[in-house]
Amino acid sequence: MNSSDGPDDRPRSTDKGGRTDETTTGTEPDVLVLRQGTHGVPVEQYAGALRDRLPDHTVSLARTPAAEREAIRSAAFVTGMMLDSDLLERADDLDVFACAYAGTGHLPLDELSERGVTVTNASGVHGPNIAEHVLGAILGFTRRFHVGARRQRRREWRHYKAHELQGSTVTVVGLGAIGQAVCDRLDPFGVETIGVRYSPEKGGPTDEVVGFEGDAFDDALARTDYLVLACPLTETTRGLIDTEELVTLDPEAVLVNIARGPVVDTDALVSALRSGAIRGASLDVTDPEPLPEDHPLWTFENVQLTPHNAGHTPAYYDRLADIVAENVRRYTAGRDELVNQVSL
Amino acid sequence: MNSSDGPDDRPRSTDKGGRTDETTTGTEPDVLVLRQGTHGVPVEQYAGALRDRLPDHTVSLARTPAAEREAIRSAAFVTGMMLDSDLLERADDLDVFACAYAGTGHLPLDELSERGVTVTNASGVHGPNIAEHVLGAILGFTRRFHVGARRQRRREWRHYKAHELQGSTVTVVGLGAIGQAVCDRLDPFGVETIGVRYSPEKGGPTDEVVGFEGDAFDDALARTDYLVLACPLTETTRGLIDTEELVTLDPEAVLVNIARGPVVDTDALVSALRSGAIRGASLDVTDPEPLPEDHPLWTFENVQLTPHNAGHTPAYYDRLADIVAENVRRYTAGRDELVNQVSL
Repeated sequence: MNSSDGPDDRPRSTDKGGRTDETTTGTEPDVLVLRQGTHGVPVEQYAGALRDRLPDHTVSLARTPAAEREAIRSAAFVTGMMLDSDLLERADDLDVFACAYAGTGHLPLDELSERGVTVTNASGVHGPNIAEHVLGAILGFTRRFHVGARRQRRREWRHYKAHELQGSTVTVVGLGAIGQAVCDRLDPFGVETIGVRYSPEKGGPTDEVVGFEGDAFDDALARTDYLVLACPLTETTRGLIDTEELVTLDPEAVLVNIARGPVVDTDALVSALRSGAIRGASLDVTDPEPLPEDHPLWTFENVQLTPHNAGHTPAYYDRLADIVAENVRRYTAGRDELVNQVSL
Repeated sequence: MNSSDGPDDRPRSTDKGGRTDETTTGTEPDVLVLRQGTHGVPVEQYAGALRDRLPDHTVSLARTPAAEREAIRSAAFVTGMMLDSDLLERADDLDVFACAYAGTGHLPLDELSERGVTVTNASGVHGPNIAEHVLGAILGFTRRFHVGARRQRRREWRHYKAHELQGSTVTVVGLGAIGQAVCDRLDPFGVETIGVRYSPEKGGPTDEVVGFEGDAFDDALARTDYLVLACPLTETTRGLIDTEELVTLDPEAVLVNIARGPVVDTDALVSALRSGAIRGASLDVTDPEPLPEDHPLWTFENVQLTPHNAGHTPAYYDRLADIVAENVRRYTAGRDELVNQVSL
């Protein structure tokens, strides 16, 4: 199943010595769901969503560490938030790990690659909810709701000035599923949009597209009113927004980070906030994370902090199950290409 | 100029005994701007925006009460936030009062009508900013930003559940310029929309349109996740949202009022909030207004209060001047139909 293996049209049932014979007799589940859920939603709901979509398959949930250790020995298709090295060592028959997160940096990718395990991610699951979070954050700063909230706490009925989003320039760094969902929702607001991606020549859903560095990137920053970070954390994006970039931004610019904390240099951000170099920041991710109690980022009125929460949605397990059920069907049918396959 | 006067193609210069002769010699201004500004923005900016758009006209600003009382005696075209009876009595030559607000309920409309003064309003000026406010309020409740803000104040990094706007039903009461602007911006969010208007048979920008009462209205309320009030205050809409309507709404529904306070029965709203009959409310307008310091509406964490501030936008005077300058041109050219003419 590893993408480097090349085409393989043999049905899965002929793989690994009759494993699928066992599956069809019900001895082995078609899908093993690991026990750790996310965002405080019971993982049983995820298993249930998979069963709803796969009535002809068996979906098993390992609800305890012991059950998990036992079940993974013979599991071929496993899905969950995390797969640590300890579990992976026991997974002799593992073909596919369907990660329940969009990011896979927390997985033992080298070991998975060595064992020829195909890894898929949850890319696309978060488009609607994170885009709603981003638009909410942008509009909150546009309307200066934090000023309204302060007055409300004082029972102070007093007008204050607001900004207007219409006519502004919004730069979206990263044009994957989330960046695209943000751009879709910005469309009727009458803003100029600039996209930042590795291959700007590919174009994108924004009015302009630039690369991650050089004069075009700097020019984009200088024109930006709202800078939305929606990129994966890579060697290119680590520390992308540092002192220089924060200085290049307009003092009225607002930073929205729903990517990963280290895309922004935290010390540079704190300095920029202290000197009024930017108007504010909405941070769903921080570096370090969780943010320590004594960290200065807690102290700013013009910083909105949410605890890596933009990914939460009541539709999470449903959208995830849509992807993973499709991959179970493809895997069972012996197809090589899975949805959201991660290059290892 | 009163719409009941019927067609009148005579150029204005022949009206009222040569008044316009004086104007062309510069004795009388073409437009008199009254001294009261709004939202804390100096009214000079409004006069400047009019001058920019009317280089061939004279725009005069009455900056003191005495100057105002004197200038209005011979003014034909006056614009401002308010025109009280005292000033109106002195306005012997007044043809047009271009009100700088979308609502004209604060004007002495009967006296204006008796004197045959044409009144125009600022309808449309507020579309973008109020729609941005409404979307920000909806998304704030969707993402439960008030819960995030509480945790932030405690320096508490802890996940919490959020809602999702996609798939929700948003009901917009009033399909004027503001309601339309709200619907435009909701479009990419994947919501069902229901519009409420006097003449539902006219249709509208929403998936469904219903009238202000009856079973269809109640059915709409029962299906509503976000109820946006964007209607004028009229006999029909006063107390539109009362105990019965709040009970019909789902306990997860959120009320957003950017119309006028008395469209909602305040006591019924407080009761509904206390009993958890609705999930929350975002109120830019209240009844009474300003909200007294000892009012229970200040006490709810799930109520967002903004001080009749949704109308603020840095583009206010520019958009207003677009309308009023066009009307100055039409008036000067002797045309009867002005933009945003109010039926008196």
